[in-house]
Amino acid sequence: MVPMKVKLREVAPRDGFQSVMEFIPTEKKLEVIEAIARAGVEDIEMTSFVSPKSIPQLSDADEIIRRSRSDGVVRSALVPNFVGAQNAIASGVNEIVVVVSATEAHNEANVRRSIDKSLSDLDAISALAFEKSIAVSGAVAVAFGCPYQGDVPEENVWRIVDAYVAKGAKRIILADTTGMAIPNQVDRVVRSFGSRLPDVDLSLHFHNNRGTAMTNLYAALLAGATTFDTALGGIGGCPYVPQAAGNLATEDVVYLLSELGVTTGIDLEEIIKAALLLEKILGYTLPGQVMKSGPRNPEVAARLCGFGKH
Amino acid sequence: MVPMKVKLREVAPRDGFQSVMEFIPTEKKLEVIEAIARAGVEDIEMTSFVSPKSIPQLSDADEIIRRSRSDGVVRSALVPNFVGAQNAIASGVNEIVVVVSATEAHNEANVRRSIDKSLSDLDAISALAFEKSIAVSGAVAVAFGCPYQGDVPEENVWRIVDAYVAKGAKRIILADTTGMAIPNQVDRVVRSFGSRLPDVDLSLHFHNNRGTAMTNLYAALLAGATTFDTALGGIGGCPYVPQAAGNLATEDVVYLLSELGVTTGIDLEEIIKAALLLEKILGYTLPGQVMKSGPRNPEVAARLCGFGKH
Repeated sequence: MVPMKVKLREVAPRDGFQSVMEFIPTEKKLEVIEAIARAGVEDIEMTSFVSPKSIPQLSDADEIIRRSRSDGVVRSALVPNFVGAQNAIASGVNEIVVVVSATEAHNEANVRRSIDKSLSDLDAISALAFEKSIAVSGAVAVAFGCPYQGDVPEENVWRIVDAYVAKGAKRIILADTTGMAIPNQVDRVVRSFGSRLPDVDLSLHFHNNRGTAMTNLYAALLAGATTFDTALGGIGGCPYVPQAAGNLATEDVVYLLSELGVTTGIDLEEIIKAALLLEKILGYTLPGQVMKSGPRNPEVAARLCGFGKH
Repeated sequence: MVPMKVKLREVAPRDGFQSVMEFIPTEKKLEVIEAIARAGVEDIEMTSFVSPKSIPQLSDADEIIRRSRSDGVVRSALVPNFVGAQNAIASGVNEIVVVVSATEAHNEANVRRSIDKSLSDLDAISALAFEKSIAVSGAVAVAFGCPYQGDVPEENVWRIVDAYVAKGAKRIILADTTGMAIPNQVDRVVRSFGSRLPDVDLSLHFHNNRGTAMTNLYAALLAGATTFDTALGGIGGCPYVPQAAGNLATEDVVYLLSELGVTTGIDLEEIIKAALLLEKILGYTLPGQVMKSGPRNPEVAARLCGFGKH
């Protein structure tokens, strides 16, 4: 049995746009964010408050938050450290997402410091967010496997999760950063999470490097998961492997959930249109499949995608 | 729980090569078939005995069967009608696969005749195959949804399945020809099949038009399915939607099954090498993911795919 209702956190404007090597004009980013919100998505990770030297693609983070639609939408941003949190909160976000990797090797590669150093920032970030009444979510990168060391002991993940929860995080995001999760592993982790932390929200973030992202989502659903990170058009992941390593495509997930009878509050046709808009802006074919084939209904498929016979 | 052992029927040389618009030289096809067999695949659908006018890509069907390796490999071929069956059997196949669509609209589009007309050929085909001791498998196209009419009533599928079984077919292939299957539908159909026909083999053939092929395979596994049609590199499907509508990639399935502890008898490294050979022959990027990212082990990934950090 799958849950009756699922929430999707949209991450294309952050995880996706940071993976596109050239700078997407701010106006175009806002146009995509608006289309996503119009389709009914309520949680949008809009950008990341990182150094513009590291990720120039997101150097307009402050403007994105200030100018983006705020009615009924949680405007979320990733922050790598305390300065990022300060800047994000000053810009007006509703939520900050802190990220720490489950392995030292990946944390070094990602934010150039040790896991302990990353965790030591949590006190100050949490205090600031609490003072300003901003929600904090804690993300664990490479939670299901690490491209540098392979398997990741689950106790490494729980250690970071426990630190987040101790500092007041209301949501944990477990990220399969390079698509190494296996469905039975996902099943075990989701069930353990529910037993250990029944009052903390869990979002699963799956990449498709090994073709298993949707299968992992399905395994998580069967284990009772109700929140997922997804990205319009399936963009995201490593920019050096085009079309190979994206996130789960939001519209593909909305399609599957809708066929399974699961409510998301997101309009399938509108989210497909948003994906087609994104593809037009980026100018190349995106990994999402439903934006190419359309939903199962042949008339709707033909109307939205120009054909429905494939 | 998933089964301990699964059989994969390789269909790239038929379903894949017919979708590549230019003719692949016979030598190259045989090289790919040999690489697939070397990896440990025991059932290979090597070609289709159709009119060369309809599908010139497979006009070398007779030569493919005659020259392909026969030791320990089931050399299978699709046949659209009695003449095709005669030609296939004359060339030396071990198995013929007959195909009928579950909807009139798709059968007309595929073989230009009614379902009844297709079924009426079964008597003669079965008699010939029985006389020559050749196995007959019966495939049902668009068994999970039709691009022309949408939903397909399950009784339409059972009617064709029952006709196949009545004529002595030992294996049924249910094909999700345009990627419309939903995991809970797959679960229901696989369980029904097991109850109705416990002594008949079932193979599931999933396309990825809507991003759900691997998820459907996983749902089928959980329901007890033990045989799947897959295609090296994920090629196949409609040639007019490049990289959008392929079959399940054999190497991606071998990877997932191996991580789930399911035995296939297929060597993961060898099948990835076969996929890379196929990509080199075709000259463009294939949809398979594991051939790009490698397995989970970083050293193996780096060695096979040239990188493993993605």
